[in-house]
Amino acid sequence: MKSTVGVGVIGFGKVGSEVVRLLVEGIEGTGFRLELRRVADLDITTPRGVEVPRRALTTRAEEVVGAEDVDIVVELIGGIEPARSFLLEAIQRGKDVVTANKALLAQCGDELFQAAWERMVDVGFEASVGGGIPLIRAIREGLAEERIERLYGILNGTTNYILTRMEEDGLSFEKALREAQEAGYAEADPSLDVSGRDTLQKLVVLLRVAFGMSVALEEVFCEGIERITPQDLEYAEEFGYKVKLLAVAHRVGERVEARVHPALVPQRAMLANVREEFNALELVGKGVGHQLFYGKGAGGRPTARAVVADVVALAGRRLSGATPRVRSLLKNSGLKLLPMKDVILPYYFRFLALDRPGVLAQISRVLAEEGISISSVIQKGRAEEAVPVVMMTHEAKEEAVRRAVARIDRLEVIRGRTQVIRVEELC
Amino acid sequence: MKSTVGVGVIGFGKVGSEVVRLLVEGIEGTGFRLELRRVADLDITTPRGVEVPRRALTTRAEEVVGAEDVDIVVELIGGIEPARSFLLEAIQRGKDVVTANKALLAQCGDELFQAAWERMVDVGFEASVGGGIPLIRAIREGLAEERIERLYGILNGTTNYILTRMEEDGLSFEKALREAQEAGYAEADPSLDVSGRDTLQKLVVLLRVAFGMSVALEEVFCEGIERITPQDLEYAEEFGYKVKLLAVAHRVGERVEARVHPALVPQRAMLANVREEFNALELVGKGVGHQLFYGKGAGGRPTARAVVADVVALAGRRLSGATPRVRSLLKNSGLKLLPMKDVILPYYFRFLALDRPGVLAQISRVLAEEGISISSVIQKGRAEEAVPVVMMTHEAKEEAVRRAVARIDRLEVIRGRTQVIRVEELC
Repeated sequence: MKSTVGVGVIGFGKVGSEVVRLLVEGIEGTGFRLELRRVADLDITTPRGVEVPRRALTTRAEEVVGAEDVDIVVELIGGIEPARSFLLEAIQRGKDVVTANKALLAQCGDELFQAAWERMVDVGFEASVGGGIPLIRAIREGLAEERIERLYGILNGTTNYILTRMEEDGLSFEKALREAQEAGYAEADPSLDVSGRDTLQKLVVLLRVAFGMSVALEEVFCEGIERITPQDLEYAEEFGYKVKLLAVAHRVGERVEARVHPALVPQRAMLANVREEFNALELVGKGVGHQLFYGKGAGGRPTARAVVADVVALAGRRLSGATPRVRSLLKNSGLKLLPMKDVILPYYFRFLALDRPGVLAQISRVLAEEGISISSVIQKGRAEEAVPVVMMTHEAKEEAVRRAVARIDRLEVIRGRTQVIRVEELC
Repeated sequence: MKSTVGVGVIGFGKVGSEVVRLLVEGIEGTGFRLELRRVADLDITTPRGVEVPRRALTTRAEEVVGAEDVDIVVELIGGIEPARSFLLEAIQRGKDVVTANKALLAQCGDELFQAAWERMVDVGFEASVGGGIPLIRAIREGLAEERIERLYGILNGTTNYILTRMEEDGLSFEKALREAQEAGYAEADPSLDVSGRDTLQKLVVLLRVAFGMSVALEEVFCEGIERITPQDLEYAEEFGYKVKLLAVAHRVGERVEARVHPALVPQRAMLANVREEFNALELVGKGVGHQLFYGKGAGGRPTARAVVADVVALAGRRLSGATPRVRSLLKNSGLKLLPMKDVILPYYFRFLALDRPGVLAQISRVLAEEGISISSVIQKGRAEEAVPVVMMTHEAKEEAVRRAVARIDRLEVIRGRTQVIRVEELC
C-alpha cells in the first residue's frame, strides 16, 4: 500500500485555489499519496471552482497548523503576521512548511530556517521568487557546488510590463501603469512593485540562497521606475541599450554589491530581451559561466505548480527520512555588503539645460573635477527653452556621481532635476 | 560520524579530470562524505593536474565496476560500447550510475533505465543535455506535474557559434567552421555537430524525459547547417528573423512533431538572442507557460559540475533509502510521432532564377497549385546571370512544400537548388 502524506493549506485565494485543485486532482508518479486534509480561509463560502470536502474547510488557520493528520503546511496568505506565527507553530509541531511569502522570508527567513532545522523539518519556498520558474531549485541543487559570482534578475512582472509598454508604445509611466492595471498585471496599489520593493524582497531571499548572506531590507539600495520617461528609453536605444528594473548582486573581493534599480542593459544581452510580464534570473558562476532562467514570475497557476513541486519534494524527503535541506541555508558565508557609495559603474545622465553656449563646458568641468569621464554625448535640437543633454560615462564611483549631480543641479543653466540611470554591461 | 559513499570514475579525460578534481577537493554541505575510490582510463600516466592516489588508478574499467567499495559509477568515455556494458554491469551489481553519454542514452536509454529500476538503483544523466545547465532537473523536478506542450532547443554550441560568426561577421559556413575549430569549439571531425546529429541525440533524450516517448534516432527528421549561407542570414534579418539550429518537439493532439533543422526565429524571441557557443532550451507548459534555460552547453568544468551534482543527489538518495527516480522514466505516454510530411509550418525559400519577365509568375503558379501562399517576397538587383528570389510563405504542409520545390527546381528559369528553411514563430 502507498504511504500517504497529509497536506494543509492556509489561504484559499488565487494561488491557494490552484494548489487545492492540483492536490484534489491528484499528483501522479510520486510513489506516494498526497492527501488534502485542511484548507483555511476567512472566506470559505465563495465558490473556487474546486470540490473540497466540507469538513476540510475551516476559517481558523490554527486548525490547519494543529491538525494531527497534517504533515505539510502550505502558507499562502502573505504578509508578516500572522503568517510568521502560523509557520513557526507548524514547525514546532514537527510539520514541514511551504510558503510563497517573499516578504516574510526576506524579513524572518533566518528565524524560520533555524526553527525548522532545530525540529528537523524542512522549508520549501520555490514559489517566493520567480513564480513558476524553478530558480531556487536551480541554485540550491543544480549549482550546489558552484561559487556564484554575480546575479542579475528581472524579478517583477508588473514593472517589466510597464517598461515594455513605455518602450514599445511610447507610453508615459502613468499611462503604462494604468494599462498594466487594466491588463490585470498591476495591483490597485502598485507601489510595492513600481518602487522596487517587491524586487528587493526577492533579492534578499536570493542573497541568502546564492551567497549565504543575511541582509536586512533597509541595508540594500533600492530605487523604483517611477522617474523613467519614454525619452530615457529612446536615448538608451540610441546608445544601444534597453532599460530594465534589475536586482543585482555582485561579488567584489570579500564584499558583495547588492542593489535594485532601473539599469541600462546592452540590447544584445539576453536580459534586454525579457519583455512583457516575464521574469528572468541570470547567474554567473565561477565554473559554469553565465546561466539564465526565464519564465512567468507570477500568476496563480505557475505559482501553484511551484508550491506543489515543493510539497511533492518535501513529502518524498519526509517519507525517506532524509536530512532537511534547510540545513544548507543556515551557513553564513561571512560576506559583507559593499556600501552603495563605493559601487563603481558606468552611468547615464539626462540633464535639462538651457540651450546656450558653454553649457556643455560647465557640465563637463564638474564631471571632470569629480573624476568622471564621459564616453558619449547626445544633444539634439535647438530651443528657446531648456533642452536635454544626454551622456554616458565610463566607470565612476557612486559617491562621486552623487556629488557631481548635486553640483550640476545647482548650476544656473540647469532647469530640472538630472536623471541618473546606472548601466549594467552584464559581462 | 558522517556516512561515506564511494565513487568510481571511468574516463579520465577533460570532463573526467574535472570531476576527479572536484571529488578530491571535497564537496561541502552535503551531510555525507563522497570518497573517490577508483579512476579508470587507458592512459593513467599523463598528468591531469590533480592528485589521485596511485592505487586508485587503473587501466581496467572492470575494476571500477567490480569494486566492492564503489557505490556510484560515473561513465565518461562516450560511445555505445563498451560504455553500455560497463553501466549495465555496474547496475547489476547494485551501483547507481551517472553518465554524460547522450549517444548511449538516445540509443539504449530504455534498457539502462529498466535495468536500474529492476535492481532498485538510479541513473543520473544531467550532463548529457545542456552541459552545466540543469535542464533535466528542471523538467523532472521543477515541471514534474506539468504537461509540456512544446520544446525548442539550441543544444549544440559549435553550430550556434558558427551561425553567430556567419551572421555577425558575414563569414561563409566553411570559414566560420574553421574559426570554430581554431577557437576550440569544433572537433577535428565536426560532422556530428554540423549535421545536427548531436542535437538529435539530445532531442531523443528530451523526448523521453519531457514527453515520455521512446523514439529511435532514425525516426526523427534531421537536417544540418551545412547549406546555410551568409546571404540567407541577411535575408532572414530583412524579414525580421535570425537563423538557429533548433531541436523541436511539439504536441499536436495525440501526436508529437519532433525534428532538428535550421530555422528562422523572430529576432525579438529569447532564442534568437542566444549567441556564440551558448545553449538554451525553451519549454512551453500548459500551466507555467514559456520557460527558458540558458547557459554553456559544454566544456569540461560546467559538464563536470553537472556530473558531480548528480553524484551528490544520488548519494543522498542512496543513504536515505529513497525510491530510485528512474521509475518516472519508464512510463510510456503512448504519444506517437507525427510524420514529417504532415508537419505544417511557414517556410523561407531562396530560389536562384534567371532575371527575366514572368519568372516570378512561374514560381508563384507552382506554389499556388500546391496550395502554398506567399506572405512576402524580396527580389533585388538586376543581372545577366541568375538572381536570388527570396520568399516567406504562410503555413504550409511539408509534403506540399517538397512537391512544389521539386517542381520549381525543374523549371527552365531556375539555375540552382532552391534553399528551403523552416520558420518557427515560437509562440
